[in-house]
Amino acid sequence: MKAISIGLLGLGTVGTGVVKIIENHQDKLMHQVGCPVQIKKVLVKDIDKQRDVSLNREMLTTNPNDILQDPEIDVVIEVMGGVEDTRQHLLSALNNKKHVVTANKDLMALYGSELLTAASDNGCDLFYEASVAGGIPILRGLVDGLASDRITKMMGIVNGTTNFILTKMAQDGSAYEEVLKEAQDLGFAESDPTADVEGLDAARKMAILSTLGFSMKIDLDDVKVKGITDITEEDLEYGKQLGYTMKLIGIADLDDDKVEVSVQPTFLVESHPLASVHNEYNAVYVYGEAVGETMFYGPGAGSLPTATAIVSDLVGVMKNMRLGVNGTSAVTPQYPKKLKEAHEIRSKYFLRLLVRDEVGVFANITSIFSEHHVSFEKILQLPVKEKGLAEIVLVTHHASLQDYEDILVKLRDLETTKQIKSSYRVEGSK
Amino acid sequence: MKAISIGLLGLGTVGTGVVKIIENHQDKLMHQVGCPVQIKKVLVKDIDKQRDVSLNREMLTTNPNDILQDPEIDVVIEVMGGVEDTRQHLLSALNNKKHVVTANKDLMALYGSELLTAASDNGCDLFYEASVAGGIPILRGLVDGLASDRITKMMGIVNGTTNFILTKMAQDGSAYEEVLKEAQDLGFAESDPTADVEGLDAARKMAILSTLGFSMKIDLDDVKVKGITDITEEDLEYGKQLGYTMKLIGIADLDDDKVEVSVQPTFLVESHPLASVHNEYNAVYVYGEAVGETMFYGPGAGSLPTATAIVSDLVGVMKNMRLGVNGTSAVTPQYPKKLKEAHEIRSKYFLRLLVRDEVGVFANITSIFSEHHVSFEKILQLPVKEKGLAEIVLVTHHASLQDYEDILVKLRDLETTKQIKSSYRVEGSK
Repeated sequence: MKAISIGLLGLGTVGTGVVKIIENHQDKLMHQVGCPVQIKKVLVKDIDKQRDVSLNREMLTTNPNDILQDPEIDVVIEVMGGVEDTRQHLLSALNNKKHVVTANKDLMALYGSELLTAASDNGCDLFYEASVAGGIPILRGLVDGLASDRITKMMGIVNGTTNFILTKMAQDGSAYEEVLKEAQDLGFAESDPTADVEGLDAARKMAILSTLGFSMKIDLDDVKVKGITDITEEDLEYGKQLGYTMKLIGIADLDDDKVEVSVQPTFLVESHPLASVHNEYNAVYVYGEAVGETMFYGPGAGSLPTATAIVSDLVGVMKNMRLGVNGTSAVTPQYPKKLKEAHEIRSKYFLRLLVRDEVGVFANITSIFSEHHVSFEKILQLPVKEKGLAEIVLVTHHASLQDYEDILVKLRDLETTKQIKSSYRVEGSK
Repeated sequence: MKAISIGLLGLGTVGTGVVKIIENHQDKLMHQVGCPVQIKKVLVKDIDKQRDVSLNREMLTTNPNDILQDPEIDVVIEVMGGVEDTRQHLLSALNNKKHVVTANKDLMALYGSELLTAASDNGCDLFYEASVAGGIPILRGLVDGLASDRITKMMGIVNGTTNFILTKMAQDGSAYEEVLKEAQDLGFAESDPTADVEGLDAARKMAILSTLGFSMKIDLDDVKVKGITDITEEDLEYGKQLGYTMKLIGIADLDDDKVEVSVQPTFLVESHPLASVHNEYNAVYVYGEAVGETMFYGPGAGSLPTATAIVSDLVGVMKNMRLGVNGTSAVTPQYPKKLKEAHEIRSKYFLRLLVRDEVGVFANITSIFSEHHVSFEKILQLPVKEKGLAEIVLVTHHASLQDYEDILVKLRDLETTKQIKSSYRVEGSK
């Protein structure tokens, strides 16, 4: 029986993992798909570079067209990263009737719709499980497992670097900068960590997840983003006293037909399952109207987990090829996009204030909250750190973001307010 | 376009849930499948019974053949439970070329192979996601999501009743009997809780999971089972002092080509994600060679979660119908069954002994362990509770089950051993 031929774009750590898995699991792949699988050609930058896998020299090429225009190649696996060139390569592959598997979240967050349309137009599969949360089969879970349910909310820890940093900060009581350095030394953070620590990487994944989960085209620009660079060890310590764990949480929330998608540092109630997701692990907590609460947990990155997700997608493509049903599994968004406005986004908030330690100050503060009908769940009065100043930590009951932001403006204007030290969303309680 | 017609066997709480979901999600189903879906006939015991859904009287029948032999019915959904009659009904449905979706773990654990063969012979789908862990898409995760990986171990909390009981015992320090009564009052335990508390229900699910995960036909009789009825609040308290949480854990473990499948009360290291799975929730922790550790978490039972899993399976069947590829997704076991023997099963163990408080007793005990080359990870010397007696809690390093059982026999034979109070497996550490 004719083997299915793969073209691989990129041979970094993930690409190398893909090559190894396909080599090591020939039996299992054959059992599932019913025919052999072979990698025919690999696009690399430098043919002579020393590599961790032994591939014949003639399998390597520096010319993408050797793959994109080879009629014998059935499936293109993209693990080269990048956006503009890669987009053109994948459009070319699809237009040449090649199925595509990609791990590229940057590309899918920006041009997912365009690529999915091209796939559908050409009767090709375009699978991208590996682009969200590495080895966790979350996209498949959303599409197939919860096919008959209505997903109303997703909360995700979808960036391993920031989760590693926050876990270490909480465990060791260390400062952000110090832990970032450690994470970089251990290889859990890049030398330029901006995309991770500023929340952009998580935002890309939330755009992909919410588009699929809500069947609504959510663009990267629709995702409100705040990173973890301002979090202090004192914040974590105060949170701990209140029973909270700090996580960088991506939230996608649907009420009626309007959504909010955001990424921000969030205090989670300690008993919430996401609060136990530590180190570089990722997890996505999904609320379904009928199923209730489910969670998908696993490694969010790493070359082998990501390569596993890619080969699982490849198996899906190959099964479809054998059945002759490629290009049918893409589900186009069913609903028009409607974003929530600030008065429709409701949450609890943690607020830490430095104020003058004078009579009446606390009364002034609470009266501002009262004007907006926002009440408190918890109040922490802290020992005075500087002479004449007091620190107050407040946790609100549910309030609209609009009210909360109006309150912040008024608090800032108070003569007695020295500084708004920090402010975080609180999630995970009823 | 012609609607797809469903026949429903059973209209209890899960069946009612299925009817409601299909009614409420017509739009979403239509969007995914591309044609309408309708329930044509429902098998009930008593047509005149008051019900939570309004179905036309002529849709109800007490004669299974009205469904099994109706050529217009495409898919049979089985939610009536039971084994022998139900098996005949489903064989009849498959032989009449009807696809089957079932939530029946008893049936699948006993006759899964026979039914899957009948499905394959007739070109029909037989899906059973709802039979394991209610609303968690774990079977799909194993088959599709980890398609390219080699699963080496699964640990599952797959029974909600026992997890609810153990959670309450740990939280309140209450005795088993007391908490069982509370669980029965709250509807989390049946009036006859035997199948749950003796571990049989979990064993059925582990048979199904391990058959699929290891691609090896594991029978219910292959699963070693121990229930939770002997667990005391003192055990939980001692475990807590050592940093352990008690769970009823189903283990399916593969080394080389041999497996162990068991269900038993197990002390989990508190930091293990399964230790945070509380109340009636279920979770399955999966170790893949490449992907590493992933976890699937969610409601293990309940009418709506189970109904959701059923309708998700139904969507799978209907998509296959539209594509004309039914009967192709069943993967027959690839490997011959090989079970581990006691000397090949390795684990850590927690042992609690009541011994005479005499000189040399502890030395005698430890020398028995030494003879079998088993060493200790933790030792807890407890205050004497009865005059002349001492209580000792030991946690071993990894040992073979054979050695451990030999040690227990020798300890029991010691004149100074008053009682072996309890003995549990310990999991979740490296």
